[in-house]
Order: sequence, then structure tokens, then C-alpha cells
Amino acid sequence: MTKPQPLTRHIVSINDLSNREIETVFQVAYGFLKELADHNIPYRIGRGTSVASKFILASLFYEPSTRTRLSFESAMLRLGGANITSADPAVSSAAKGESLADTIRVTSNYADIIVIRHPRDGAARLAAEYSQIPVINGGDGSHEHPTQTLCDLFTLRSKNRGLRNMKVAISGDLKGSRTIHSFVYALARFGATIDPLPAPGMELPPHVARRLREEFHCRMVSKSPNEADGSIDALYVTADQPHQLSLYAEPEIDYGLVLQKKIDAVYVTRFQKERWTEKERPYPKIDAKFLGEGKYSHASVMHPLPRVNELDAALDSDRRAIYFRQAAYGVPVRMALISLLLHLHRSKSLHKFPGGFAKAEHPLYVQRIGTGIQCANPNCITNDPAERQYAANKFYIMEDHSPQRCTLRCLYCETDIEAEASAHFVVSDSTRKTYSPGLAALKHTPADKLRHLVIHNSEADAEAAGFAPRVGGKKAHAG
Amino acid sequence: MTKPQPLTRHIVSINDLSNREIETVFQVAYGFLKELADHNIPYRIGRGTSVASKFILASLFYEPSTRTRLSFESAMLRLGGANITSADPAVSSAAKGESLADTIRVTSNYADIIVIRHPRDGAARLAAEYSQIPVINGGDGSHEHPTQTLCDLFTLRSKNRGLRNMKVAISGDLKGSRTIHSFVYALARFGATIDPLPAPGMELPPHVARRLREEFHCRMVSKSPNEADGSIDALYVTADQPHQLSLYAEPEIDYGLVLQKKIDAVYVTRFQKERWTEKERPYPKIDAKFLGEGKYSHASVMHPLPRVNELDAALDSDRRAIYFRQAAYGVPVRMALISLLLHLHRSKSLHKFPGGFAKAEHPLYVQRIGTGIQCANPNCITNDPAERQYAANKFYIMEDHSPQRCTLRCLYCETDIEAEASAHFVVSDSTRKTYSPGLAALKHTPADKLRHLVIHNSEADAEAAGFAPRVGGKKAHAG
Amino acid sequence: MTKPQPLTRHIVSINDLSNREIETVFQVAYGFLKELADHNIPYRIGRGTSVASKFILASLFYEPSTRTRLSFESAMLRLGGANITSADPAVSSAAKGESLADTIRVTSNYADIIVIRHPRDGAARLAAEYSQIPVINGGDGSHEHPTQTLCDLFTLRSKNRGLRNMKVAISGDLKGSRTIHSFVYALARFGATIDPLPAPGMELPPHVARRLREEFHCRMVSKSPNEADGSIDALYVTADQPHQLSLYAEPEIDYGLVLQKKIDAVYVTRFQKERWTEKERPYPKIDAKFLGEGKYSHASVMHPLPRVNELDAALDSDRRAIYFRQAAYGVPVRMALISLLLHLHRSKSLHKFPGGFAKAEHPLYVQRIGTGIQCANPNCITNDPAERQYAANKFYIMEDHSPQRCTLRCLYCETDIEAEASAHFVVSDSTRKTYSPGLAALKHTPADKLRHLVIHNSEADAEAAGFAPRVGGKKAHAG
Repeated sequence: MTKPQPLTRHIVSINDLSNREIETVFQVAYGFLKELADHNIPYRIGRGTSVASKFILASLFYEPSTRTRLSFESAMLRLGGANITSADPAVSSAAKGESLADTIRVTSNYADIIVIRHPRDGAARLAAEYSQIPVINGGDGSHEHPTQTLCDLFTLRSKNRGLRNMKVAISGDLKGSRTIHSFVYALARFGATIDPLPAPGMELPPHVARRLREEFHCRMVSKSPNEADGSIDALYVTADQPHQLSLYAEPEIDYGLVLQKKIDAVYVTRFQKERWTEKERPYPKIDAKFLGEGKYSHASVMHPLPRVNELDAALDSDRRAIYFRQAAYGVPVRMALISLLLHLHRSKSLHKFPGGFAKAEHPLYVQRIGTGIQCANPNCITNDPAERQYAANKFYIMEDHSPQRCTLRCLYCETDIEAEASAHFVVSDSTRKTYSPGLAALKHTPADKLRHLVIHNSEADAEAAGFAPRVGGKKAHAG
Repeated sequence: MTKPQPLTRHIVSINDLSNREIETVFQVAYGFLKELADHNIPYRIGRGTSVASKFILASLFYEPSTRTRLSFESAMLRLGGANITSADPAVSSAAKGESLADTIRVTSNYADIIVIRHPRDGAARLAAEYSQIPVINGGDGSHEHPTQTLCDLFTLRSKNRGLRNMKVAISGDLKGSRTIHSFVYALARFGATIDPLPAPGMELPPHVARRLREEFHCRMVSKSPNEADGSIDALYVTADQPHQLSLYAEPEIDYGLVLQKKIDAVYVTRFQKERWTEKERPYPKIDAKFLGEGKYSHASVMHPLPRVNELDAALDSDRRAIYFRQAAYGVPVRMALISLLLHLHRSKSLHKFPGGFAKAEHPLYVQRIGTGIQCANPNCITNDPAERQYAANKFYIMEDHSPQRCTLRCLYCETDIEAEASAHFVVSDSTRKTYSPGLAALKHTPADKLRHLVIHNSEADAEAAGFAPRVGGKKAHAG
Repeated sequence: MTKPQPLTRHIVSINDLSNREIETVFQVAYGFLKELADHNIPYRIGRGTSVASKFILASLFYEPSTRTRLSFESAMLRLGGANITSADPAVSSAAKGESLADTIRVTSNYADIIVIRHPRDGAARLAAEYSQIPVINGGDGSHEHPTQTLCDLFTLRSKNRGLRNMKVAISGDLKGSRTIHSFVYALARFGATIDPLPAPGMELPPHVARRLREEFHCRMVSKSPNEADGSIDALYVTADQPHQLSLYAEPEIDYGLVLQKKIDAVYVTRFQKERWTEKERPYPKIDAKFLGEGKYSHASVMHPLPRVNELDAALDSDRRAIYFRQAAYGVPVRMALISLLLHLHRSKSLHKFPGGFAKAEHPLYVQRIGTGIQCANPNCITNDPAERQYAANKFYIMEDHSPQRCTLRCLYCETDIEAEASAHFVVSDSTRKTYSPGLAALKHTPADKLRHLVIHNSEADAEAAGFAPRVGGKKAHAG
């Protein structure tokens, strides 16, 4: 009962959908939109279909929301389905101290599909692990918000007929905004150029920038010619045919042209004050003056909303503003995603694909609960005291070029424990009861033997857990 | 997309419905009630119709409610429709600082009709301005609560077959109760006599009393013959044929008879403690002793509920108590209103009427955002910091008898800036860059030129905004 | 309108259902489950039926809940019905100070069936008194949680094909857990043996233990042979044919065998911290070590969930763990109960039975509001200041063996005012205006004359209420 059915698909990250699957979602969404156009009702869907009439969506929102929750619930109703809702953590079983893992296992018996919002990074992935029905991530901490990105892409595509060669500026809190993280992965994957305009100290997180470079084949190009030092003042340019390129080949891109290209869209985000300890910080405001610069003359202005003060209300009547259309598209796009996950379309489906975006297959290290290292991200769901006994630490072992180094990427929140920081780690071997310094042992162990290894924070931790230092391939005498 | 469709009707005030339209609502409601009677289920509607099966009601409640929200949602379900609900401001996007204007623009893409409750006076009117779908006011601050009044009138009518010549006493917090404000307008319009029994210091607000007299043709008649001074100890008597009378003609009413007439209904309201800073005040309690007086012998006892202590529980079994019937009628009355606003009745509709109750057409002054005077009501939605950039101040220019004086009525909360208080205002002319003292200029300017004027609080404000005093029709030299 | 229809059935206590009716609920639930099995979907119900398509369930939750509320709402949707929900007391009319009695009278016009959760013992019974539609108790204070018990029994029966001769251990907070109270009554009625394993100081409440012995024919048998003193260290053994036995006949049970019998199920409960003033107390943890004892080798592990720390997460993969199945059965069991209460089954119904479990008919004393004694349980709904004017104190007069003594059982919370404590009570006679010491007068008065009596806390109270001591059958002269 707690075992997921084999064909259950979850959408936790935008990268759980391949590019082709995203196109499928959009095709279905356009179909729903077209029904409207025929009735001359712009952007609103008649509740004309009842394909989901036997299905229930459970909305589990552990954080404030109007837009996302109501648009999911509206989408489900427009499909003919029904909703059950838990929208306030303070009045739910969480108030009694229940773990997310338990809530999901129970709720997945009451509904056919779950959408979850949670303040912890990686919470949606944990939920998916414990769910026998599809889980959609409605926003998890600062990690991802994939359905917002689907709406964003759909809006851009309906305006521009494609994303390749587009140049998209992203402004504001690039660090705390989960919307941005899902968005930049998608932009890169579809061949757009990303121009970051972060508020001071709110640059893209290092692990996101790293993935853009390593996994999604972006090149960082300095915007100011004098400082070609790879600092933050740089564009991310997607290589032309990323999936056919090897990681180190130089694509045929004329960076000069890219730098001069006008901005096609400015994506503005609010200061995610719930993710910071400071309540006020210097923050850019996008207004008519900012957009008066020549390169923005045809730039669509986008915002995932809600906005506070970072976007001037006077822009609402500017022809470049498309943020209310973004919000409106939330219904058809979510209708499409829900109906595909529930297999309600005869000829289209997501379930035949084994997973999402084809990524490098990294070996996975799964740690036994109650021992070994923790994720370095304090906001990761694995660091939530209520979840610890249900959330084993799991790390992908990432490739590094130095043979002695190794980076660990948390399966849940996808932040990296960098090789530098991991120098003091040791790897213990449960079979031999010994440990070795550094993470090199992880790289030398085949995937099917990884379960015998335990990563400890230090030699002391390993010894406390009953391991002895390994000496020359043999177990040393315990001191 | 943010532009309302031309035929979208909103019910913000009871005066948005003409008398004839209110009768239409009641006819439809009786139809729904009759279906019940045929099944011998008193006061409850079988969910027998599915006319609204393609429609979604969005409930946006920024203030506590059980009754109003649940009866709207029940009505929508009984019509075959569905609901999406945001019932707690603390868990909605408002918690992130989103403005009402943005929330409405977004939500109006997710649903087909909105009901809103909000603590600010005038919030529902602002919502209607930004909505492309019908907005129903479920209570806005101390302003109005028109659907409660529809239930009240429906209850009175089902008991008395009409309102003309009825005498209705209204007791309690007449100042803070939005229910009372909508109710007294309706009573006046349908020819009832209003007998106010306010708690000390909780009389009808001056602008409501003024509208009763000037707009709805009521005469104030002193209840105590010795004090015919127009003080609060007075009845409001509706002129017999108000709409055919000129404003100043004396109707043929025998006030002596009116004063002696027995009370037909006592309408009790609770102390609206959320609208006052004091938590306790002397407050009348309606009980068997109070109702023992001869003039109340056949008086129906009404209450919009919830009640606290102002209505003795012992009255529940009194044959005069009809307050639970009032609540029960909430469903058929709201079914009727929703279905009419959604155009679900073949032969009946609200949408052919251009507006609500035919009122005097006052010229409208619309101020540019960020300049000029503010509404004098601190609880007006235009004074909410989060809304200021979306809520332009708008005032109707009311007629006054002195040529030098002029009263401004806020479009949103409908409170008046009285002529006396406005003596220090100046009117600036954007074309000529000059200002003149007083509001007289407003009266001398044709409606289509009003957009060139700006009302400032003082000469200093006008000068700070770059205007110079007007001298003899010409611009003076700036000091 | 406030008068319930004669055939309206409420499920406030598990004892409102007879054993045969519980079997009927299970038959219907199995029918719903079977539909699933045919589709190979374990534990989940397709929304295949629309028998309830004309009906609305109102969820009124005055306490946190996810599981119970969502499973009720899911059940209603799976039946084709719809829901209206008030899930947060802070945003409902209760925040304005409304009484439960009023809320129920109003809500029962908006829906067809109500499920209520409330922090006060007895609240659901009060709600049922004021409702014209069926009320289901979703948990009231520490009193009862009958639908959880239905799920528990259904789970046990689906595993064991019956309850007779089973031995069920109950662990944890037996005092504060309403789930336990409903469960032990049902276990006793179906012939199971109850083995209490309370946390220190959290034994079954005296009135529950008393009912097990007196009403449900249980024998207390000491678990430790040396202490046959009837202390807490005892089993409750159900007599073999309880309903055919007189109260004092000794059933033919071999207690030695019962004591040796292995445990069939361990029912674990969390510390109900919201019912205690202390936030931490010593509490048993059920884990693999505990269950390693031989007598638990085949014991199913049950838990009503949510769990905190009292049940080791490592047990989740233990074959004995059936707690997630318990939760999953919530949907079909509640579907069955709702559909039976709404009379949606042609051949099966609850409405022909006059009441619940056939219990001894005790005379009922109903006190006038505002006078006389209060229930001794401070958490009883009758002691809630907001409800006092609607909740008359009502007590069953229980049989006692001493002619001078008499125990009173509150109709709402079912706690007893014990004879010992009631020694200082006096009974006043409204007809004669006299009072007599003790409660003996209650036993000597026929049921139809009880309404003339008033129980006062003391002679002083009776005299303050205008009664004089009764002297030799005549009224004494007032001092």
C-alpha cells in the first residue's frame, strides 16, 4: 500500500519533464484554450469537459498561497474533477506534530493526485517517495516551482513561437526564488540566453549556476569586457545543440552578437522575505524608467506574482506587461498537466516515459537513517526534525576532475556538498568495519556496492560508530 | 484581459439593484423554494438543478465568516456549480503583501463569479473595478452587506406580502453594522418606516441618514413631540411615492398615525466589536421584557446573526422570532442572485439593465494616483497602504444649495466629505497650472473637463505640486 | 424549523449504533471496497457512484485535523456528493462569539449532513440536539470518536473475520484519547478481551471503566495473580453472551486461559497533549523490542494516527503494522455511514431503528437553564460559557445499590457525578417549594414528574433559589 505503482509519475522539478513532454503539456493546454477562443472568452476555460469526473485532487499547502492553490483547484474543477484541501498548516495534523511522510501516505488514499507546497527545500521529492499517486510540486522552499515555469514558458511561447535565441533577463531575488530556479533550467534547455540582474547578494545559488554550466551546457560570458573573470556580472548562453555536444566542446556562438542582442523578456521577482532573516534589503524596482533603455524596447515584462513593490503598478497599462496573462494561463496549463498525469488523454500521455529530462546517470548513495552525514542545506527537508526518521539522506555522487575529490548532490534539495568542504569526510565500509579519509572510496565502488558504505563527518564520528582506520588495505588494530 | 466585459454586473450595494430587479431575484428564489415545498422539505433546497454545472464561484473572505460563506457555497452547489475558497487572509497571498486589485485580477481568471468579504469599506467596489467577472459584496467593513438585506427583505415579504406601510425598528450598533446600512436603504426604497433604536453613540452614520433624506426621500419625524429638532430621537418615514416626487415636495403623510403605528418588525444587531476600539460598551438587550410592550405584540424579531448577548436565547421559542428563517432563506436567495448574474435563466436576467437603482447622476471626479486629497474615512479601501497605487480617489460631486459649497462622496465607501470641512480645499487646473480656493470650481466645470482638475488639501499642497494662485481669471506670477 | 425530523439519526457515540447496524455499515463498506478490487486498485475507491449527487456534507472542525476531515470529504466526493467546510475556528463565526447551538441551527439549512469536531466533551451531542439533519461526531474532546472506531473494527474484521475471543492491548493515553473510549465500548460489545497498557497516570477514566463493567458486562481480571484487588493492572474480559446475562451472573470464562492467550492486536495512541496541561510526560514507545516478546508475535499493530514518537518508524515495514490500512479504510467506511444516514441504499438503512445500541433505559433529569447543578467535568460542553444558555444540564439517573445513593451521568459528556461526591446535593421540588437533602428524592419520583425537581449544590443554593427545607412531608416555615 505504501509502495508506489510503477507508472506513477511525479512532477517535482521542471527536469522531471523532458523537452518533448513539455511540448505535449503545451499542446494539450492549447487545446483547452482553443475551446475558449471558439466561445470568444479570452483566457478563461469553460468547464466543458468532465474527463476527470471520477478524480480527486488533494491540495496540501503548508505555506500561504492564493494563486497557485486556486488555479490548481480551478483547473481540476474545469476538468470535471473535485478537490479536497488542507490550506493552513496550523489547523492540520501537522499541528499535532505529524510528519509529512505520514500525511502523504494517508492522504494518498483519499485522492488521486496531490499538489503540495511546503517551506522546506526538497519536501515535494520526499512526498513523492511516500505517495502511491502522482505528486505535483506547488513550490518547495527555495528549491523549485515547476508548474509556474510551465505557465511562464507557455506565455513566452504563445507570444514568440519558440524560445531558442531568446534573451531573457531575470531580476531580483535570484537566490531565494524557487520560480527562478525552475525557470533558468528550462530556459537553458530550450536554448534561451539568461541575463541575470540580481539584487545585491541575491545571485543565483552556486549549485544552480553549476548545473547551468555542467548539466545544461551554458557558457558564462562576461557582460563587461574588462572583467572576463567569470564573476557574477555575466550572461548564461546556451550552447546551440546542447544535447549533441560533449561537455567541453566549444559551440559556435558569437558572444559579441549575444551581448548586443536586445532583451526579449524581463522576468521580475519579489524579495522572498520569508526565506531571509532580514526583512528589508536594497532591491531593484522595475518601472518605466528602467524599461526606457533601448534594449528593453520590445521586452515583455513578466512576474510570477504576487508582487509587492518591485514592479511599478503604472506598468499595468504598458503594452509590454504580460504578467496577468501569465497568471491566467495557470488554468489551462495545469489542466493539461493534471489530465496527463491522470492518463485522461487517449493519444497523449506522460506515463510511457521512464522519467523526466534525460540527465547524466549519477550513482546514488543512500544512507541508513540515524547515522552518517547530513545535507549541508539547513532548510533541506532531511534536516526537519519531524521528518528525520522518514527521510534517509541520499546523495548523487557527482563527477569531479580530480581523482581525490567528489561532490555530493542531495537527492531532495539538489544542493551540493562541495568537494572542498568535504575534505574531512571519511567513508566507512560496513563489511570491513573500516574507514578511509576523503570521498575517493565512493568513486572506486561500483553502484551496487554503495549500500555498504557510510559517509561520516569525521574520523571521530566513524570511530564512534565502531569503525577503525583502514591501513594499507587491511583493518588496523583499534586504538 | 483586465477590462471588464460590458455586460458584467456587480452587486456591491443594495442600490446596485433596482426595485424591480429585487423583485426578480425574489421570484427566482420563490421558484427554488417551491421545489422544496413539493418535496415537503421546509426551507431546504434539493440539489435538483444543475444549471450552473459549468461555473465556479470564488469565495474570497478576508474576514471571519461561517454563515455568509457557507450559504453562498451551498447555494452554488445546489445550483450544480462548484467553489474555490480562500477563507483565511493569513494563509493567502495577502500574507505576502499582495494588493486586492492584483488578487482580483488573477482570481477572475480562475472562476466565473466572485463573492468577497473584506474589513475595509469600499473594498468590494474596488474589486468590481478590477474584475472581469461579476463580484458580489459579502460585506465590506461598515459599508454594506447587500445579500443579507435580500434575505431580510425576502423574509419580511414572505411573512407580510409587501413592505409598504410597514414600521421596522432597528436596534443596536447602527453605526458599525453594514447589514443595517444596506437594510435601511432598502426599507426606504420599498416604502417602510424606519424606527432607529441605537445603542448610545451608535446612531446611523451622518452620510447614511443624509442619503435616507435626500436620495431615498425619507422625512425625519420626532418621536417625542417636545423635541421636534431633528435630533436622533426620530423616525424615518418614506414618502408615499418617492420616485414621482420632487425632492422638496411635502408628501401627504399623517405623521401622527405613523407615530402610533405598531412595530411590524424589530431588527436586532450585535455590537460590531471588530469595528470599534473599545471592546465593551453599554448595549441594549432584546428580551421578553422589552418585547412585552404593547407596540411589539406582533413584531417579528429579526437578527442577521451571529448573535452574542444582545438577543435573549429564551426568545428562540417565541412565535415572533424569525431569525433562523432569515438564515435559512440565505440559500434560495443567493441561488437566485448567482444564477441571475450568470444569466442562467432563459426569461429572467439582470444584465439588460444598465445599472442598479436609478440614482441621481452626479458628476464624478477621478483623481490621478499619488496626488490630491484622500477620502476622509480612514477605513476606506483607498486609505489602505497596500491598495493606494491601484485605488485612485474618486468622488461624486454632490449638489449643495449654497453656490460656494460642494460635498464630495467617495465612490468606494460612500462617505461624504462635507462642505464645511472642505472650506480649505483648493481646486487646481492642470491646463492652466493655477488653483482657486474652495470647491466652487468643481461645480462650474462640465463633467468632461473634470479630468483636468485636481483637488488639493490646501494652497500649500497645490503650490508644492506646481500650481499658482489664480488671479482674476489669469495666472498670477509664481512667488 | 429547529425541530429535528423524526427519522433523523445522529452518530455521536459508537453506542448510537447497534451491533447489527455496525454490521450493516461494514457490508456496505465492503461493497464499495469490492468495486475497487475489481479494478485492482487496492484500498482506493473509484468515484464511480453518484448516489449522493444531490447532497452536501458540512464539515465543521473546531480542532486541527487532516485525516478525519479529508477522509470524510473524500468519502462524500466518492459518493458523488459535495462539501462545504469550516476548518478553522479562528476564521469562523465562532471568532465573533457565536454559540455552537446557533451555528448548527444555521448550518443545518445549508447542508444535508454534518460532521463536527470540537474540543469540548459532549459537543457533538449538543449539536445533534439542535440539528434537523444527521450529525456525525468527528471527535469531541476526550469523549468519543465513533467513526475512527468503525475503521478500526473494519480493519480488525477484514484481517480476522470477527472479534469474539480476540485479545486487544491498548497502549498509551487511555484517559485523554477519545478514540480509545469508543474503541473499548465496541471491543466489549463484540466480545473481545481488552488488555490496558496505560502510560503512568493515563488509565481509562473511571466512568469508562464503570460502563465496561456495568453496561457492557466486562469482568476485570487481575493480570498479576498476587494483586487480585481490582487495581488498574487488570484485563477487561467480556462475558460470553453479555446481552442474555443478568448483570450479576458469573459467565463461564476460564480466566487462566484468557490471561495466557496471545495478543491479537496492539492499539497504540499518542499522548493527547492538547488535553493535558503538562507538555511532556513519561510515555511508552512501541518498537521492535517491545513487540519482540512472544505474546506479540502475531499481534497486528494499530494506530489511529497521527503518531508522534510513540510508534517507531522502523515498524512501518514490519508485517504486523496495519495502521496505514486503518487510515485507508476511512474512505469506504465513511462512504457507507454517510450513505446509510442519507438513506441512499434501497435495501439497507439505519433509519428504521429507533436508536443505537440497546442500553438500559435510565430516567432522564432535565434541568432548567440558569439554575441548579453543573456537570462535574470542566471540559463538558455544558460548562462552555458561550453554550450555557443553550445547553441545559441533563443527567441520566443511574441505578445504585444503596437506597440513599444515586449517580448522575451527564447526557452530553457521559461522565458521572458519583454518589459519594453528591452527598451534599439537595433536591428541590418546584411544586411544593421545598428541598430535601441527598439525591434519594430522584429515585422515588416517577420519570414523568422529574421535571418538577431541581438539584442544587447545597442547601444554601436551594434557599437562595427560594426553596425551604422539607420537614416531615410538610413545608417548614422559612427562617
